[in-house]
Amino acid sequence: MQASKNIAIVGSGLVGSLLAIYLRKSGHKVSVFDRRPDIRNIEFSGRSINLAMSDRGWKAMRNAGIENEVRKIAIPMEKRAIHLVGQPVYFQYYGDEGEAIYSISRGILNRKMIDLAEAQGAQFYFEEKVWDVSLPEATIFTGETERGAWKEYKFDMVFGADGAFSRIRHKMQRRSRFDYSQDFLDTGYKELHIPPNEDGTHKLNKNSLHIWPRGKFMLIALPNLDGSFTCTLFMPFEGDHSFEKLITDEQVKAFFKEYFPSAVPVMPTLLEDFKNNPMSALVTMKCYPWTYWDKVALVGDAAHAVVPFYGQGMNAGFEDITQLDELMKQHNDDWETIFSEYQRLRKPNADAIAELSYRNFVEMSAKTADPKFLLQKKIEKHFASKYPDKWEPLYERVTFSHRPYAEALAVGDMQNKIMEEIMAMTNIEDIWHEVEVEDRILELLSEVEIDKE
Amino acid sequence: MQASKNIAIVGSGLVGSLLAIYLRKSGHKVSVFDRRPDIRNIEFSGRSINLAMSDRGWKAMRNAGIENEVRKIAIPMEKRAIHLVGQPVYFQYYGDEGEAIYSISRGILNRKMIDLAEAQGAQFYFEEKVWDVSLPEATIFTGETERGAWKEYKFDMVFGADGAFSRIRHKMQRRSRFDYSQDFLDTGYKELHIPPNEDGTHKLNKNSLHIWPRGKFMLIALPNLDGSFTCTLFMPFEGDHSFEKLITDEQVKAFFKEYFPSAVPVMPTLLEDFKNNPMSALVTMKCYPWTYWDKVALVGDAAHAVVPFYGQGMNAGFEDITQLDELMKQHNDDWETIFSEYQRLRKPNADAIAELSYRNFVEMSAKTADPKFLLQKKIEKHFASKYPDKWEPLYERVTFSHRPYAEALAVGDMQNKIMEEIMAMTNIEDIWHEVEVEDRILELLSEVEIDKE
Repeated sequence: MQASKNIAIVGSGLVGSLLAIYLRKSGHKVSVFDRRPDIRNIEFSGRSINLAMSDRGWKAMRNAGIENEVRKIAIPMEKRAIHLVGQPVYFQYYGDEGEAIYSISRGILNRKMIDLAEAQGAQFYFEEKVWDVSLPEATIFTGETERGAWKEYKFDMVFGADGAFSRIRHKMQRRSRFDYSQDFLDTGYKELHIPPNEDGTHKLNKNSLHIWPRGKFMLIALPNLDGSFTCTLFMPFEGDHSFEKLITDEQVKAFFKEYFPSAVPVMPTLLEDFKNNPMSALVTMKCYPWTYWDKVALVGDAAHAVVPFYGQGMNAGFEDITQLDELMKQHNDDWETIFSEYQRLRKPNADAIAELSYRNFVEMSAKTADPKFLLQKKIEKHFASKYPDKWEPLYERVTFSHRPYAEALAVGDMQNKIMEEIMAMTNIEDIWHEVEVEDRILELLSEVEIDKE
Repeated sequence: MQASKNIAIVGSGLVGSLLAIYLRKSGHKVSVFDRRPDIRNIEFSGRSINLAMSDRGWKAMRNAGIENEVRKIAIPMEKRAIHLVGQPVYFQYYGDEGEAIYSISRGILNRKMIDLAEAQGAQFYFEEKVWDVSLPEATIFTGETERGAWKEYKFDMVFGADGAFSRIRHKMQRRSRFDYSQDFLDTGYKELHIPPNEDGTHKLNKNSLHIWPRGKFMLIALPNLDGSFTCTLFMPFEGDHSFEKLITDEQVKAFFKEYFPSAVPVMPTLLEDFKNNPMSALVTMKCYPWTYWDKVALVGDAAHAVVPFYGQGMNAGFEDITQLDELMKQHNDDWETIFSEYQRLRKPNADAIAELSYRNFVEMSAKTADPKFLLQKKIEKHFASKYPDKWEPLYERVTFSHRPYAEALAVGDMQNKIMEEIMAMTNIEDIWHEVEVEDRILELLSEVEIDKE
């Protein structure tokens, strides 16, 4: 057991609440500050992509002892359901039998996590806006407005779990030798809605992540417990097919009719939703260092915000906490080592998942509609099933394992190079399941092994 | 002539004062705000690398009508003087006969520019700290402290010329879809000093930029008007040879004796300077967009801070003003077009000079001591002198031309590829001046031409 510390967490989102649970279990006094009202008392905002919990997230749930509670609000999605215009839905399984990612509503999960953290004894302060932090003093300053009167709270330690636009990081950013970048996509998103059937069942296959890939834009839908789906339209802000071209109802209607004809019949509130829901931007945020002495540390999106296309943003944030927890057990009261090891170990993995998430936008929106790409996935899957110790597909390595993201990225790059050669084989469409192809993959793999030595 | 506008410039540094001159000449009312005291009334700070004015800077001086005034405070440096341990000084000319870069003290130049801007009728407000800006209103807020009482000034237009840590950009950065990065080198710098001889002459060759290249660290010296040299030691903050290893006088003495024996005799105040002068960090800063409607624009380091190794930071900032001036003449009162064209045209060039500046650190500190690199430069020079229309060395294209930086970077990359093949020729050390080498370069160049078509 560690010596009990008085710890502030700024941000009561998913990662902040989870951290509160872990710190309480380790015997610390925990105060969580959030500038927003208690999410348990308000409607959700209509600008959230549904979450996809995968193995890294579940591990953090399990170790916190809340896995069973959270399973109750999660819907397994074992496959992608790919909707092409004028073709039947095509299913693409994510992993092996029994492997799935889990659709969870951000709002429902966040409420549940705050309940669980409170049950553990964490104290939450809502609508208490943190404007400044003294890093060496671990003191935070809160108040109604940035230029009004402030209250001062002194702690032993402060965690910044306050998201992609973190105030805590903002203060660290003004220091010399603090690397920082925020990089927006030209593609934004808008939340849309598929309601349940009258009997409460889902209008589309419930256990799928639905994708309507259309090249530079796409629609996705993830199932909710109440039979509805939360949909997200990803599309460029400007250009040929873009948000700026969809202003009038007529334009929206014509666009959906042309590109998403199979979605239109299940989206009765499309026009209202399109008008009422905001257009949001997508940012990749990187920074370093993540910690200040043994006083302040960033976790989750505050340290590494990624675009949502690998479904790993929350999982990566939860894995930060798993990592911190392991280091707390290993180094006990040596918080300086805990913090420096935490950032050293996590940073390369955060960079890797940022890169993978960015790349997956291209994969989801364009490549899932490309027969060549689908064939490549089929070959990989076929080979992996025959040689599971030699080939774990990238997606599975990211989603269904706990190996570091950085390793997944490196192995994925190596696999891509091999698959480029395979896809260039003559008549690959006809011979893809022949032994000849397997042998060639084995040969290329053995060359990589030799390179390594 | 443009319709007269009421314009604020935040920052009275080199780019801000130059912009003031240009805007006054175009008939605008100009107020310049600076949080610091008037540099004309204070000692310089001892943390400035001397400036190297080259053709882009001179063009901006010329068009502003202040070239002659500035020439008086500039010392031409037509060559690098390379100091290797135990070897005579080696001179490497930058360009052709008569081509040079010009050493200028930042403080002296800044004072001169403020004088010239005032003479043109610009109004300067020193020690007036800008804390906030309303972008759509072009209104700035100043005050003693960030949380104290503020004064409000409304303008037609605001230019942020407030450097790498710009407050104006800071406000833009909080907006969605604003890309931003700050990236620090692990190498820092410290200013040192070589005093003049008793008769006021220089202790080292006056018309040279002196370099003591030592791989991961280096010392440079640029001449001043009073016979002294401003020296800069660039060195990693941590590691084998680093600032953290040079704490005691003994450590500093031993380090200089071993690595810079030729500099020690001309640096009598080395130990004091080393102790008293601060250690500074080096940052590359990028952002986009640079403008907000027709209301606010960033110029110079506020838009694109680069590391100092190409001597182009000030020149790039001055070229921003040249570009703005051209667009003002072209589009007259259409400031929306002026601003959008300004950022569209300048951004790729700012990115290019950032990349070139970063790469030049490696060239200056490591490669200038490498015989193979020196031979390569010799071959390029030889070829360029015979075929001046076919080969302009990268350094000259950046320093002695007005072609875009982005073009220089692209052509430089192409030349590097060619020179890689040339340097791999058998016995290149012996045959470098033979016709065979020239023919091979011509052949490789013609292949590039064909690729282009």
